[in-house]
Amino acid sequence: MDPAAFRRHGHALVEWIADYRARVETLPVLSQATPGEVRAALPARAPEHGEEFAAVMADVDRVLLPGLTHWQSPNFFAYFPANSSEPSILGELLSAGLGVQGMLWATSPACTELETLMLDWLVAMLDLPPAFLSTSAGGGVIQDTASSAVLCALIAARERATRGASNEQGLSAAGMPRLVAYASSQAHSSVEKAAKIAGLGRELCRAIAVDEHFALRPDALERQIETDCAAGLRPCFVAATLGTTSSNAMDPVAEIGRICQRHGLWLHVDAAMSGTAALCPEFRHWFAGLERADSYNFNPHKWMFTNFDCSCLWVRDRQSLISALTIVPEYLRNPATEAGAVWDYRDWQIPLGRRFRALKLWMVIRHFGVEGLRREVRRHVALAQQFAAWVRADSDFELAAPAPLNLVCFRHRAGDAFNQELLERLNRSGALYLTHTKLEGKHTLRMSIGQLQTEERHVAAAWSRIQAEARRG
Amino acid sequence: MDPAAFRRHGHALVEWIADYRARVETLPVLSQATPGEVRAALPARAPEHGEEFAAVMADVDRVLLPGLTHWQSPNFFAYFPANSSEPSILGELLSAGLGVQGMLWATSPACTELETLMLDWLVAMLDLPPAFLSTSAGGGVIQDTASSAVLCALIAARERATRGASNEQGLSAAGMPRLVAYASSQAHSSVEKAAKIAGLGRELCRAIAVDEHFALRPDALERQIETDCAAGLRPCFVAATLGTTSSNAMDPVAEIGRICQRHGLWLHVDAAMSGTAALCPEFRHWFAGLERADSYNFNPHKWMFTNFDCSCLWVRDRQSLISALTIVPEYLRNPATEAGAVWDYRDWQIPLGRRFRALKLWMVIRHFGVEGLRREVRRHVALAQQFAAWVRADSDFELAAPAPLNLVCFRHRAGDAFNQELLERLNRSGALYLTHTKLEGKHTLRMSIGQLQTEERHVAAAWSRIQAEARRG
Repeated sequence: MDPAAFRRHGHALVEWIADYRARVETLPVLSQATPGEVRAALPARAPEHGEEFAAVMADVDRVLLPGLTHWQSPNFFAYFPANSSEPSILGELLSAGLGVQGMLWATSPACTELETLMLDWLVAMLDLPPAFLSTSAGGGVIQDTASSAVLCALIAARERATRGASNEQGLSAAGMPRLVAYASSQAHSSVEKAAKIAGLGRELCRAIAVDEHFALRPDALERQIETDCAAGLRPCFVAATLGTTSSNAMDPVAEIGRICQRHGLWLHVDAAMSGTAALCPEFRHWFAGLERADSYNFNPHKWMFTNFDCSCLWVRDRQSLISALTIVPEYLRNPATEAGAVWDYRDWQIPLGRRFRALKLWMVIRHFGVEGLRREVRRHVALAQQFAAWVRADSDFELAAPAPLNLVCFRHRAGDAFNQELLERLNRSGALYLTHTKLEGKHTLRMSIGQLQTEERHVAAAWSRIQAEARRG
Repeated sequence: MDPAAFRRHGHALVEWIADYRARVETLPVLSQATPGEVRAALPARAPEHGEEFAAVMADVDRVLLPGLTHWQSPNFFAYFPANSSEPSILGELLSAGLGVQGMLWATSPACTELETLMLDWLVAMLDLPPAFLSTSAGGGVIQDTASSAVLCALIAARERATRGASNEQGLSAAGMPRLVAYASSQAHSSVEKAAKIAGLGRELCRAIAVDEHFALRPDALERQIETDCAAGLRPCFVAATLGTTSSNAMDPVAEIGRICQRHGLWLHVDAAMSGTAALCPEFRHWFAGLERADSYNFNPHKWMFTNFDCSCLWVRDRQSLISALTIVPEYLRNPATEAGAVWDYRDWQIPLGRRFRALKLWMVIRHFGVEGLRREVRRHVALAQQFAAWVRADSDFELAAPAPLNLVCFRHRAGDAFNQELLERLNRSGALYLTHTKLEGKHTLRMSIGQLQTEERHVAAAWSRIQAEARRG
């Protein structure tokens, strides 16, 4: 593509995206496509000769758009938000245009240094423990997802518990302790996935009971740790959650931290969605006790308007992470690394390569400013609290869990089948998109509010629609 | 950012990127920044109030650019290429603008279906075994990197070897076999990293001897397998490489495949960079024997003009991969998945979330067409062969390894210290960027040719510069 054509197509695409964002609220949120429909509308084989870019964009409109579920719609209330914003889109574009690799400091110093600085900025913005600053023994890194972050933390914990022996001899070596990980029964599936990948096994990833607010019960945790110790197992890792995916439950991190300290366990805290709330002083009480965490993770790609992927992981002791993941083949040796003066982020993650993801985070923070980000968080929390009040005021419905921030779990009182049917009808309508969970065995709807473009009118329309569909029975 | 501002800044950024690509060859390829320099030029804390986008772009020019190593420069001959192209940049922009999640089919059907189709297109484009087609028992997925791909393959192999028991009980359970993985001594560090992460341990990741062309010796592999079996260990996984990072060595996949079949081992083939060469029939002889591979990986983000990250992984038996990685919590259940009619790619990878990476691959393939991609590959191979001929013709230099495709390993005859000093002077000049390796213990320079914008004049200028610097002594 010659430079003039790139300019022309690039400008057209910028316009297309601006138009898309303007009209996305008019599109059915959940794609109505049936399995195989998108594929069937495209050629079965690659073209032998190059095609015009305009032909590709025509297929985007004709084939792909109807096959998309519109995560950037203001009527998207499913899962957790996977938010984007204009400055973030521009940051991703710039990253693609530069096309640099940040695996080593030397392969693009700015890529590493801006990332370290952004993670330090966030420590101050979120009032995180100073131990996470790069200027201390800790530091932060951008991962792709919270799943990868918890896996890295677990590997570091595994190596700390075996003093590097599991990396050397493997977990099946004679005399290797049987390591145990813990998380609440409400924790994200990524904890169990990490335990499997890291070789601990599902059975040694204990699901700890929760209290009436779906938060981990510290007494149950400590009892299980003691039982496991008595059985000759070696507890090594606890994943606490601030804002579970199911119901936004907040585990009591301070108490869990004391237990971890007492028993010498690595404490990882996953605040993937809710971590953004720590921007606001009035929500910081949920984050009390973080100073006892060995690692902490939150995703700007969920509720901080930075498009996927951008998941921030901090560790208190960076050497424990680096020594668990580093390998230095000859072809990656370079003077800066050898001198020990720089950080090489390939030692902080599973993959080797990495793109310049700090750019979009930098653009988002500078565009909004800390105050601007706080304003959006407060707006979303207020909308969710308004929604919860509407649910509370309607005797046909009930709240299914506390709503500490921007997720409201609720259900119609008519039972599981009714709620399931209600959800399907709502989603089929295309007017909004909600997902569900099970709480105390009951089918529960989740209203997750975190889209940048979501205003009060969207939430009000959603509630009206839910009420109307429910009345239709 | 209001829509009008997004359009304005978006257009300016498209112009900036077009200008950058035009002038990148005039910039020093390897950044001359010193540790801490970039960070020191930026504020220590986030701004309280939002800033103008133009101020951010001014800092890009003033602070970031001098801190970048320019991977898209036509004078970039280091590592392997991490290539970009105009249609790929536009694809990444569109993906960011849409901001959809492809973790489940239901979360955006087009995201899953276009990806499956692209991986099927590539099977035909690269003449890969039909067993990798989604219409067979296999199929393909886009991973972030070859590191994650080999980890996923190893986990699947681990579970196949233990019939799922290691996922359930963990590798340290009583009676669990001690699993062994194999790769050549020249294999990428990601194999050892995967063995550590998966709990096998470094000691059970055997480095197999290579022949005079740095390719794995099948006899040495089989001997080691037999030794390990005799010692009561359980061989389970071989990673063969087509185009090692160090010297582009080609392991004999057909013979290795026969050994794997004989002993019941999972064969993973990593062709991260060189896989693109299979576009051209005249290079396909290197890929003979792939029909015996259980998994195969190549990276369009290296030599197929698709920007990072885009790493394609195929498996012969998708159930073996899915069953090793799947977990289905309630909040991810949905009718399409339950009906079994669709693929959910979250079960094919480590992370849960995933962005719409197939878009850029689709745009690249449609823009170039298969014939256009072949033309670039042939051009790069011809340039590398020309460079190798120049080296051969200069009695001060020697080739250090065969150059089957687009990587030339060479050295000055004056010894290690001279080559090391030569490399540092060349890179410091900013005129080009080369990296090194060690072959037979000797410091060796690597000339890796795969940039879209690299023309004969760049390669000729690089060789003149190398000769001139060497004569300066």
